[in-house]
Amino acid sequence: MNVEFINPFIKALLNVLTTMAQTTVTAGKPKLKNDAISKGDVSGIIGMIGPKIKGSFSISFDESLALTIMQRMLGERPDTLNEEVADMVGEITNMVTGGAKMELDEQGYEFDMATPAIVTGPNHTIVHQVSGPKLVITFTSPEGNVHLEICFDK
Amino acid sequence: MNVEFINPFIKALLNVLTTMAQTTVTAGKPKLKNDAISKGDVSGIIGMIGPKIKGSFSISFDESLALTIMQRMLGERPDTLNEEVADMVGEITNMVTGGAKMELDEQGYEFDMATPAIVTGPNHTIVHQVSGPKLVITFTSPEGNVHLEICFDK
Repeated sequence: MNVEFINPFIKALLNVLTTMAQTTVTAGKPKLKNDAISKGDVSGIIGMIGPKIKGSFSISFDESLALTIMQRMLGERPDTLNEEVADMVGEITNMVTGGAKMELDEQGYEFDMATPAIVTGPNHTIVHQVSGPKLVITFTSPEGNVHLEICFDK
Repeated sequence: MNVEFINPFIKALLNVLTTMAQTTVTAGKPKLKNDAISKGDVSGIIGMIGPKIKGSFSISFDESLALTIMQRMLGERPDTLNEEVADMVGEITNMVTGGAKMELDEQGYEFDMATPAIVTGPNHTIVHQVSGPKLVITFTSPEGNVHLEICFDK
């Protein structure tokens, strides 16, 4: 995997947050995960399998940002990270991976997506168990941060 | 998916814990997840994709049980849920899914496995976003509990 793999995911996330929730976040610099542990309060995780690649993708939101996105989408702000917020994070996970998949398919990196799992719990961390590089990028906003992690086994 | 899908996963978990860590856990009754929320301190999550099925699998350990398994495998008990414990949970996730995969392949339910992601954080919950049923089973032991969840989209 090369660092350019991350760009379709970045584009897809910016696009999804703008169109679905009128939310603009600012992308930081992509990093290799060795020195970067990203934490979040609610995360979507999805497996990816293709003939040439296999890996996992995660997207982790601060609670404050996840609740703001819900508010902008539905008009009401939930009190907590309830199951509706989890569903919304699952949808975003699907849409971002699906958007990146379309672009990577065109570049010859086909993969199929599993179904997402959503984790809720204050300040949890995620370790992707892959033999290849782990790329992480943090997006900041006044409402909180969101971290993307893209990991493939080669 | 029918409830028998869960049996290969149960067998594989019991087998892995016994052979790797001389640990016996007692299986509860498999339940549909609607009424059961399983919580854990460290979880392995893996995506599964086949021609006929697509889904995700998770295994969630109480901290005390995860540390006991590490102690029995390595002779030393870590103080916290560190990256080595996460790696061990990832390995168990791979082995249990791989064991179940072999058996389900023979029954005509082929699937390929993505790479596992491991989540660490006290008392987190997992929601699998699938359209099909979600099966959950809790195993108890004097050292703590472990929950399996198997979810497919049909």
